[in-house]
Amino acid sequence: MSTGFFGDIAKIKYEGPESTNPLAFRHYNPDDVVLGKRMEDHLRFAVAYWHTFVWPGGDPFGGQTFERPWFKDSMEAAKLKADVAFEFFQLLGVPYYCFHDADVRPEGRNFAENTSNLNAIVDYFAGKQGETGVKLLWGTANLFSNRRFMAGAATNPDPDVFAFAAATVKTCIDATQRLDGENYVLWGGREGYETLLNTDLKRELDQLGRFLNLVVEYKHRIGFKGTILIEPKPQEPTKHQYDYDVATVYGFLKRYGLENEVKVNIEQGHAILAGHSFEHELALANALGIFGSIDMNRNDYQSGWDTDQFPNNVPEMALAYYHVLAGGGFKTGGTNFDAKLRRQSIDPEDLLIGHIGGMDCCARGLKAAAKMIEDKALSAPLEARYAGWNVPEAKKMLDGGFSLEEIEAWVLKSDVNPQPKSGRQELLENVVNRYV
Amino acid sequence: MSTGFFGDIAKIKYEGPESTNPLAFRHYNPDDVVLGKRMEDHLRFAVAYWHTFVWPGGDPFGGQTFERPWFKDSMEAAKLKADVAFEFFQLLGVPYYCFHDADVRPEGRNFAENTSNLNAIVDYFAGKQGETGVKLLWGTANLFSNRRFMAGAATNPDPDVFAFAAATVKTCIDATQRLDGENYVLWGGREGYETLLNTDLKRELDQLGRFLNLVVEYKHRIGFKGTILIEPKPQEPTKHQYDYDVATVYGFLKRYGLENEVKVNIEQGHAILAGHSFEHELALANALGIFGSIDMNRNDYQSGWDTDQFPNNVPEMALAYYHVLAGGGFKTGGTNFDAKLRRQSIDPEDLLIGHIGGMDCCARGLKAAAKMIEDKALSAPLEARYAGWNVPEAKKMLDGGFSLEEIEAWVLKSDVNPQPKSGRQELLENVVNRYV
Amino acid sequence: MSTGFFGDIAKIKYEGPESTNPLAFRHYNPDDVVLGKRMEDHLRFAVAYWHTFVWPGGDPFGGQTFERPWFKDSMEAAKLKADVAFEFFQLLGVPYYCFHDADVRPEGRNFAENTSNLNAIVDYFAGKQGETGVKLLWGTANLFSNRRFMAGAATNPDPDVFAFAAATVKTCIDATQRLDGENYVLWGGREGYETLLNTDLKRELDQLGRFLNLVVEYKHRIGFKGTILIEPKPQEPTKHQYDYDVATVYGFLKRYGLENEVKVNIEQGHAILAGHSFEHELALANALGIFGSIDMNRNDYQSGWDTDQFPNNVPEMALAYYHVLAGGGFKTGGTNFDAKLRRQSIDPEDLLIGHIGGMDCCARGLKAAAKMIEDKALSAPLEARYAGWNVPEAKKMLDGGFSLEEIEAWVLKSDVNPQPKSGRQELLENVVNRYV
Amino acid sequence: MSTGFFGDIAKIKYEGPESTNPLAFRHYNPDDVVLGKRMEDHLRFAVAYWHTFVWPGGDPFGGQTFERPWFKDSMEAAKLKADVAFEFFQLLGVPYYCFHDADVRPEGRNFAENTSNLNAIVDYFAGKQGETGVKLLWGTANLFSNRRFMAGAATNPDPDVFAFAAATVKTCIDATQRLDGENYVLWGGREGYETLLNTDLKRELDQLGRFLNLVVEYKHRIGFKGTILIEPKPQEPTKHQYDYDVATVYGFLKRYGLENEVKVNIEQGHAILAGHSFEHELALANALGIFGSIDMNRNDYQSGWDTDQFPNNVPEMALAYYHVLAGGGFKTGGTNFDAKLRRQSIDPEDLLIGHIGGMDCCARGLKAAAKMIEDKALSAPLEARYAGWNVPEAKKMLDGGFSLEEIEAWVLKSDVNPQPKSGRQELLENVVNRYV
Ligand SMILES: [Co+2]
Ligand SMILES: [Co+2]
Ligand SMILES: [Co+2]
Ligand SMILES: [Co+2]
Ligand SMILES: [Co+2]
Ligand SMILES: [Co+2]
Ligand SMILES: [Co+2]
Ligand SMILES: [Co+2]
Repeated sequence: MSTGFFGDIAKIKYEGPESTNPLAFRHYNPDDVVLGKRMEDHLRFAVAYWHTFVWPGGDPFGGQTFERPWFKDSMEAAKLKADVAFEFFQLLGVPYYCFHDADVRPEGRNFAENTSNLNAIVDYFAGKQGETGVKLLWGTANLFSNRRFMAGAATNPDPDVFAFAAATVKTCIDATQRLDGENYVLWGGREGYETLLNTDLKRELDQLGRFLNLVVEYKHRIGFKGTILIEPKPQEPTKHQYDYDVATVYGFLKRYGLENEVKVNIEQGHAILAGHSFEHELALANALGIFGSIDMNRNDYQSGWDTDQFPNNVPEMALAYYHVLAGGGFKTGGTNFDAKLRRQSIDPEDLLIGHIGGMDCCARGLKAAAKMIEDKALSAPLEARYAGWNVPEAKKMLDGGFSLEEIEAWVLKSDVNPQPKSGRQELLENVVNRYV
Repeated sequence: MSTGFFGDIAKIKYEGPESTNPLAFRHYNPDDVVLGKRMEDHLRFAVAYWHTFVWPGGDPFGGQTFERPWFKDSMEAAKLKADVAFEFFQLLGVPYYCFHDADVRPEGRNFAENTSNLNAIVDYFAGKQGETGVKLLWGTANLFSNRRFMAGAATNPDPDVFAFAAATVKTCIDATQRLDGENYVLWGGREGYETLLNTDLKRELDQLGRFLNLVVEYKHRIGFKGTILIEPKPQEPTKHQYDYDVATVYGFLKRYGLENEVKVNIEQGHAILAGHSFEHELALANALGIFGSIDMNRNDYQSGWDTDQFPNNVPEMALAYYHVLAGGGFKTGGTNFDAKLRRQSIDPEDLLIGHIGGMDCCARGLKAAAKMIEDKALSAPLEARYAGWNVPEAKKMLDGGFSLEEIEAWVLKSDVNPQPKSGRQELLENVVNRYV
Repeated sequence: MSTGFFGDIAKIKYEGPESTNPLAFRHYNPDDVVLGKRMEDHLRFAVAYWHTFVWPGGDPFGGQTFERPWFKDSMEAAKLKADVAFEFFQLLGVPYYCFHDADVRPEGRNFAENTSNLNAIVDYFAGKQGETGVKLLWGTANLFSNRRFMAGAATNPDPDVFAFAAATVKTCIDATQRLDGENYVLWGGREGYETLLNTDLKRELDQLGRFLNLVVEYKHRIGFKGTILIEPKPQEPTKHQYDYDVATVYGFLKRYGLENEVKVNIEQGHAILAGHSFEHELALANALGIFGSIDMNRNDYQSGWDTDQFPNNVPEMALAYYHVLAGGGFKTGGTNFDAKLRRQSIDPEDLLIGHIGGMDCCARGLKAAAKMIEDKALSAPLEARYAGWNVPEAKKMLDGGFSLEEIEAWVLKSDVNPQPKSGRQELLENVVNRYV
Repeated sequence: MSTGFFGDIAKIKYEGPESTNPLAFRHYNPDDVVLGKRMEDHLRFAVAYWHTFVWPGGDPFGGQTFERPWFKDSMEAAKLKADVAFEFFQLLGVPYYCFHDADVRPEGRNFAENTSNLNAIVDYFAGKQGETGVKLLWGTANLFSNRRFMAGAATNPDPDVFAFAAATVKTCIDATQRLDGENYVLWGGREGYETLLNTDLKRELDQLGRFLNLVVEYKHRIGFKGTILIEPKPQEPTKHQYDYDVATVYGFLKRYGLENEVKVNIEQGHAILAGHSFEHELALANALGIFGSIDMNRNDYQSGWDTDQFPNNVPEMALAYYHVLAGGGFKTGGTNFDAKLRRQSIDPEDLLIGHIGGMDCCARGLKAAAKMIEDKALSAPLEARYAGWNVPEAKKMLDGGFSLEEIEAWVLKSDVNPQPKSGRQELLENVVNRYV
């Protein structure tokens, strides 16, 4: 029985590019086949519980703008929220959702109460999943909103907070396993510092390394099959966050022996905040072998903070999916919208419209990326550009067959005097514009 | 015999804080003892050959503003430049200098001619060092200015460029060893990309990893005792530089097995461009065990590019030296001014004035930092903040004695319910302001 | 009778530079005379009611961290808050405070109730001011937190919001006049846009121009003697705010005929967000004749949002006060701390410590600035640099005595061929460092 | 007779969207009719002489990468350059070009020689224009590259530089008039400061105001029919440029009485550097009545400096042309590519490919914008959003019919209590994505 929250809006359908219906897909058609796979199975869309059902519309200078009947801290409200959420997933036709513990359960007075509240809701979710077929892409623990975490969770100067956080993560992995979640995510929103003046950087990194090892050991012990993911972000809310970007996370994983255990969930907005492009972070994660999943929400280039907007620039998104596909596509990962409506978009239907726009843009981006891959539009010129490395002397330089002295001798003997060749950036940009 | 370039300016002397003589030190007194060591031996100042004697004052919108009699590409001009440079080092009383090959020798027609030109000048420098007692802090190769490097040196798609670069680095390490240089620096100004569309990230990282291993192997083979240093920078001239920041370099070193062989030369301006503070990069390098040396030149927070200005904000510099001292001070490293005059500062005496100001600020910063260390002004509160970790259960969490389940059991049993404690940031900022 | 909130802390005293007491001034001594005026009369410190007594410590990723007994929305709580506030002003020894309507009164159900609540509190404040001698630097209306203002106040697409806002400003000017406030401030936190797609820029600017004219007309009608101030900020919470920076506000005032009626309240953090330095905004406001007052709180250069931190970098603050003094010092304006504690600084004494640090730094900055003015340290070189403009031909170029053709004729006849002169930036930076 | 520089490349033709020929247009078809006007007459493309024919490919860390036979400072070289340039304009089929004096003539020893060199080349251009039908969109003077301008042109502390600059601008306006140029542009690349320490802001603004009045007076005296345009840029090469952005230029024009005489040439990259979007600057110039022309070259959001790249993001460009069309389209202005190839794009054909890509994207953007206008896709919702202002009471608030007191009375009487309405940002973003 419907909650009535979305009025008489029916399941969103694919109506094709010519449709002007704001409540229809124009490009996302789950059953369309792209590179031999259904579009739905490529994109693996997920809705984020927090932004879509929990965020009240506040910002640093203003309070709540959204009015939702479930905005109370009780078990009844939590269930109403769940009812609306699963209605939403079905209206939209997304296969997955994601949540933090604090999004779904009432806040308890202590750890024990938090846990029993969580478990009660997890039971409720399990029923909903069974009824609807909607699945859990990933679970996670909110270790940043409650004031106990204000100075960090794993990296807190107070070991009690570390313990509380560790125990909480255990309950959230348990919940994720119970709900057949395909990944478990850690975003360290408070694992960083506000000022170095009160921070022992080395000690806090070691705490974080130990924490993550505890998680990985536990995962194996209980036989959780999902992927452990870290979501990098450079700053905000902290001045500096330890999981700054993909390169930083990689170094951290190597330092603590976890580079084969943990992968990354990359968010466009966080890439931008760290001074990178989204495709840089994706390409680097592929190169380092740690690509896992994406949060497909953009930042505003003009704003210096994380705006978590629905994506809308297809040319940029095509390049992002190009790297996803070039790395072999998602395994356990997917396309999560860690996106919130603008706080002025206060109508229930705005929730649907935001997601529809994002999904349609993803579909366009995916199709363009797939076509570039089929045509070898970028890979053929790339191969040609590095072709010189296929000659024996070049290979010897790379595989250790040549010492520095031997290279010098070769340069002298052959009077190696390389001439620059055009990088053809504008040509390649024009090629991409044939697809988007 | 003097070149006359600096007119009748005599050796810069320490005149004390009350002096208003623009050509005197007010704070830098080499023989002052700080924390049991001479100030000169703490700071280990070096002048950068390139900015001070080679840069013509151009910027992207304008050409040369400086007029120097040695601005010609001949061996005579190179020797005149060397004469003025060593006069300058002596006037200023700095113990060290640093150079790239391209700063000091005329450009040859090929590798062989570059090498013979370099060697001729190195002989000349050796004589100058002997006469003056000025020493070489570090040597380096310019693998970014010549058009052959426009698409990278070690990371070039053309293996001939890799070979040319490798051979060039060999000659520069040879020169550095010959001149008793205490470090050898690699700054990968073109080791990055302008567009991912034409870049194979993984391949280029592997090329760079091999290149650096070649260098380290060679160093050991010839018995070079200096430290190999990488200087991180996130971008500029490239859109993305592989040695983005300290964390990125650490991950790269771990990936290619070099974390015990290579350290970092950290520049304030590059820290800023990467979205960090200078002290962050210093503290992180200490934490990761890869701190080597510093380029003590600032960026303008308002400009989005590397302005390489002389440092002038003492409170910031005190925090930088605090981390240098907290890590044990410089070993082979030192304080290099990779700083250029503003292009309107066209008089010869401006060269002295820029360096005097920078050195005086360093001296003030060092003294403030040393006093904070003596007083345990920051270290005592820091120790107190993390003191909770000294109890046995906390230790067990860190040393692997507790599993996630055991931590949960402890939280449940003891109803661990941590209460936040003040981070006291404003108090600590006020404490620092007692010293600067 | 004390509320007891600050325990047994006594009035903060000046103890001199050697004091290590965190609850004492080391530099701020109200009766010290600087340039012939008492330091208190120069600096005219004010405490901001909102950050100090109302802000709960939340950020976009976490909730309340501060626990204050007055955090309830009732008239009793409002009075307790006022009691603590005036205790705080006296402990600190500040002569002024500032407030928004929403900081001080309970939220009513409509405009009428808001107004009667405000008036009740204003009566209470009037009593407090009488007892303590503390004065009101400025009053202002909060037209950005309530959801009714989410799309702007004066610039709202809904004229009812314009009306509500206008009526509210009237009540706040009335309150300010009643309390002998010396200025009235307008900060247009929602006067801007989130997206141009739904915004009629021209219409909204006209609405804002009319709104400001209504305010100015009313001020004159009621004989309010204070200064009307606009506080520029480029963005946040909006993507774009119409009062972007000093230059933008000036153009706006000229467009709507208000350049002689309205001045600016300049905040360091907002200057930084707009891509300027604080001293730029101050110097420009002086040049344009619209300087009014300052919010002396800094941003973190590393963060892309408004951090509203207590100022702590004395060299920067000295340059800020240099421009304040160079423009003749404050008239009705003053030094407001629109500064909030870091959210981890949860102890009552942190409130005092933050302000003490800020005030001490201001005192040091003021003294350094005053000495530079006395010594003509910067003004004498400046005058010399432009001295060439005192010759008759140069004057004719500026006063309209020469046409373009006549200037060309002069250049040809005299073969004017100007040679560059050193800008001496490093020298001047060294000069400043003699004072800070 | 051809110079042979472009080999056997023939005139670029329109081949339609399916073409994969890199040397063909896929979207730009000059004779296509859009909103009742030929596409060529809408877009009014111009090639920038400086970047396309003069820039050597250098950057702050590397020298020349391009090798062009005309890279010598002689009259013969200047003519060869002109020959190649006009060949290029014809190959590409652009109706316009733009130039600075210093791009086209050899540098003379003084003003007189500069002028005679310029005039000789202008004669040559006049012949070329006659032969080819290519026209001059705008002329301008380079008052920033020569070292004499290092401290500014109009704002130089040395009045001789002001005079030299003024005389130079006169010769450039003369040249522009002689060549039937449709606009004259002033970009004040050095009209700003590196440090406030040596800058008298007020005096320099007055100098700049007088300079611009001299120009406007001269224009009228000689009957030049073109538009005088200022090109705003916030910084780079200077730390601060006085023509920061559109709002700043407007305030400046108002201050010096020029708001009806001078318009703006807006560059996407400069908008970005100033913290705005391109469409913001366009919409604001429309609102203020000073829109003139555009430089359609983008910056890289990731780089903190002006990259002057060819535009390639069609959705962004569609919004830009939407504002151009919404303001009535270009009058004397046009679409100039102030764009340079990446320095690795060293082949002659890269010059064509860069422009072809840019022109094709402009064509797509224009068509999308035109369709949005025809469909009232954005304007109809906009009108509806502000419709409340059409009621009499609302109008009275805006036209001065209501005082603040009267508005308050109305709010009280009617208990005005506005409820927020959805801003529908996501809906509108989805609407735009139907067109791009
Ligand atoms: Co985010
Ligand atoms: Co995310
Ligand atoms: Co640098
Ligand atoms: Co450096
Ligand atoms: Co602020
Ligand atoms: Co403020
Ligand atoms: Co530009
Ligand atoms: Co331009």
